[in-house]
Amino acid sequence: MRKIDVVKGLLPATVVAGERGEAFAPSNIALCKYWGKRDRELNLPINASLSVSLAHLGSHTIVTESDTGADRVVLNGIEQSTDSKFARKVVEFVSLFRGDLQQPVLVSTENNIPTAAGLASSASGFAALMLALNQFYNLNLTDIELSACARMGSGSASRSIFTGFVEWQMGHRDDGMDSHAIVLDKPWPDLRIGLVKVTTAEKKVDSRAGMQRTVESAHLYQSWPLQAAADLEKLHLAIGQQDFMLLGETAEQNALSMHATMIASWPPLLYWQPESVAAMHKVWDLRAQGLQVYFTMDAGPNIKLLFQQQDEAALLEAFPELEVVAPFSS
Amino acid sequence: MRKIDVVKGLLPATVVAGERGEAFAPSNIALCKYWGKRDRELNLPINASLSVSLAHLGSHTIVTESDTGADRVVLNGIEQSTDSKFARKVVEFVSLFRGDLQQPVLVSTENNIPTAAGLASSASGFAALMLALNQFYNLNLTDIELSACARMGSGSASRSIFTGFVEWQMGHRDDGMDSHAIVLDKPWPDLRIGLVKVTTAEKKVDSRAGMQRTVESAHLYQSWPLQAAADLEKLHLAIGQQDFMLLGETAEQNALSMHATMIASWPPLLYWQPESVAAMHKVWDLRAQGLQVYFTMDAGPNIKLLFQQQDEAALLEAFPELEVVAPFSS
Repeated sequence: MRKIDVVKGLLPATVVAGERGEAFAPSNIALCKYWGKRDRELNLPINASLSVSLAHLGSHTIVTESDTGADRVVLNGIEQSTDSKFARKVVEFVSLFRGDLQQPVLVSTENNIPTAAGLASSASGFAALMLALNQFYNLNLTDIELSACARMGSGSASRSIFTGFVEWQMGHRDDGMDSHAIVLDKPWPDLRIGLVKVTTAEKKVDSRAGMQRTVESAHLYQSWPLQAAADLEKLHLAIGQQDFMLLGETAEQNALSMHATMIASWPPLLYWQPESVAAMHKVWDLRAQGLQVYFTMDAGPNIKLLFQQQDEAALLEAFPELEVVAPFSS
Repeated sequence: MRKIDVVKGLLPATVVAGERGEAFAPSNIALCKYWGKRDRELNLPINASLSVSLAHLGSHTIVTESDTGADRVVLNGIEQSTDSKFARKVVEFVSLFRGDLQQPVLVSTENNIPTAAGLASSASGFAALMLALNQFYNLNLTDIELSACARMGSGSASRSIFTGFVEWQMGHRDDGMDSHAIVLDKPWPDLRIGLVKVTTAEKKVDSRAGMQRTVESAHLYQSWPLQAAADLEKLHLAIGQQDFMLLGETAEQNALSMHATMIASWPPLLYWQPESVAAMHKVWDLRAQGLQVYFTMDAGPNIKLLFQQQDEAALLEAFPELEVVAPFSS
């Protein structure tokens, strides 16, 4: 099914632009990863995933009418070439929602995610864009619809519509409208996320391509969907009981298992750099010394720590450049 | 089933010691790895494996009567404490074969494997010991029986009974006597193995324990036996047609998949050090530049290169400390 056909059913008979749409959406860190698509056009996942949103870190997006007669995309104050991959993806997404309106738009996005942290901005970016478009075009979409639509821009954007712990339910429908995130509403004030920059080495394979290569070539990927389902159960239990060890162990094993499926792909897909492995061993050494700290990694070389407020000082000592996020303190 | 009961059926009614047993057995590098046991007492594997023996690199073992009235174990000229893990394993193995004889023995082993290469010596060690015991006690075991018995000392020792390409057939019997290696008799004179020392960091978890942890805790391990079976088929094809690319790709993906199952274990089992990852990226960079080189890794941080004679000079330039082995040149 094509995106445009899915969205059509959600739009008013006539789309009318307002003056301005403006929204913020947080970045998110998956504790159970989204890895593998059953539909590449609609970004429908093979497994459900669960994340925690990063509070104030994310994307702030404003949509207005363009003053030049052509679509414009501005990122962090810099006008993007209309030929750039970024601008084309943004305009393509906007076009899904403007119906028969030919009015060109100006989309301006600011990401406040430390670039050093190696956090993807596509999740918060498409979520913020979706929220801004909903306002700009007076679409009156529900949160569920917003999440399902943001997913079509970037899978993990479905989760960035919400704050706190968020589950992206995989869904089963062909049009994907049951594949959206829901908020768990289980605040955990002491939980901390630590962003560690281990290297700025650029990745040669983006996560979309990496995911596809893994699904197609890694024998071990066959066991992934069942593991993800089991990990999701464990995370629900951990969140319900605020069992930090269970949360950390599950998230770390889930992330390492995702990387394991990449490592078992052909050609091999290893996002880790020597510095990544050094950081991983460092976390394990700290844990062996009694510190309750775990890590997760996405399709890149950097690591993200999971710990509790009580250990923040110790971790800042071990990782002096740590960027600490408190997902549940407002 | 206990080892002693299996061996009993192979021994003569009365075991008689000769004057001396002496044998050499090569180390071997698995191209399809042995990873997971269906019987831990007998070292019966979950999957068949395939290796290439390392010609002159291995263990040379002499068994004679002890002159002290007690069992003695000498390794590389150094007397081992009878309490040491090494001496106990050797004596336990000898005891399987001496029947009712109470005569103490002196087992002296020399390994000529460069210690820097990070090669396990248990495979060649138990194979050489088995061959020497066969001679010393006049057991007249067949090659197949020697291989099945060496396996009870160390799984991969079953393969070190033979030279060249060797397949360890997994077998299905409870007593394991159909779980032994066979020689493929497919010489490939141009094939080269390069031993790269990337680090001397000692491993904290031995391969026996690592294997067990993986089988018990890694969801992804469930897909391993099928992958190993598929890889074995591919290796037979590659060896039959001297298709180096197929050999290299299969061996590298197999090794990485084995490591992937460890990485997906809990607690995570990562034998890689930062230097290991640097060496892996280096091999991939060389390959991207057109050099036909692949690698394999065992349960440790070091890597072993697979290449052809024509590329030896280029690889010696890239890895100045490379130890090159020609498995099929005598």
